Amino acid sequence: MPSIFTKIISKEIPAHVLAENEYAICILDVMPLRKGHILVIPKHEVDKFYDLPETDYLELMKMVRTMAKVLESTFACKRIGEAIIGLEVPHAHIHLIPMNEMNDLNFNQPKLSVSDIELQEIAEQIQQKIQQR
Amino acid sequence: MPSIFTKIISKEIPAHVLAENEYAICILDVMPLRKGHILVIPKHEVDKFYDLPETDYLELMKMVRTMAKVLESTFACKRIGEAIIGLEVPHAHIHLIPMNEMNDLNFNQPKLSVSDIELQEIAEQIQQKIQQR
Repeated sequence: MPSIFTKIISKEIPAHVLAENEYAICILDVMPLRKGHILVIPKHEVDKFYDLPETDYLELMKMVRTMAKVLESTFACKRIGEAIIGLEVPHAHIHLIPMNEMNDLNFNQPKLSVSDIELQEIAEQIQQKIQQR
Repeated sequence: MPSIFTKIISKEIPAHVLAENEYAICILDVMPLRKGHILVIPKHEVDKFYDLPETDYLELMKMVRTMAKVLESTFACKRIGEAIIGLEVPHAHIHLIPMNEMNDLNFNQPKLSVSDIELQEIAEQIQQKIQQR
């Protein structure tokens, strides 16, 4: 069965898509730890990031780098943190999160409750910054 | 002043070096969250990973992928997790950690206390796996 991310990539499931190319897609995390929490996901469906073919992996990492810069320019924060965990969805995905303190990257805490309207606004803020690049 | 990692790269400060090339170095984290916690560090000293020149960044990420595979083959775990935080040392570095549960990547917990002899043994275990590749 295709993963939830593969269904997002094939547009069977809607998402706030921020960037997309042949190899990867970037979407808002709808259950964010912090405002501006996004996911960068390879289109090639594998469980673990290090099992991706090298080209897919490096293209994924290029999008991570670009989107980290975009996020940093969008949200007030000390830096952009990154995490790859993957215990819940067996399709590799990279979390990028605006950080001000260590706890901002702690996945053992409750997620933020963000309304659909707020998510849409956050997506538009990020998309504006992408267009300005 | 050079960072602690630059001093490790220039061999002014000793470390358990697991891999090294023109662009990056991989060492044991001497204050690990879990057994097998390692760091992959670019030789080009920048604070934030996304500010690295593209070649340095992609070569760093290649070492991350290789070392994640090595770690997974060395330690019993569900997968290798990754984190980039960087609030403490202003020289970009990537944490790779053998994981069995979410809390294994929680930096808001006490570090393990590991003796020098145990660290040496862990380094040798990883080096053996590298040689078998």
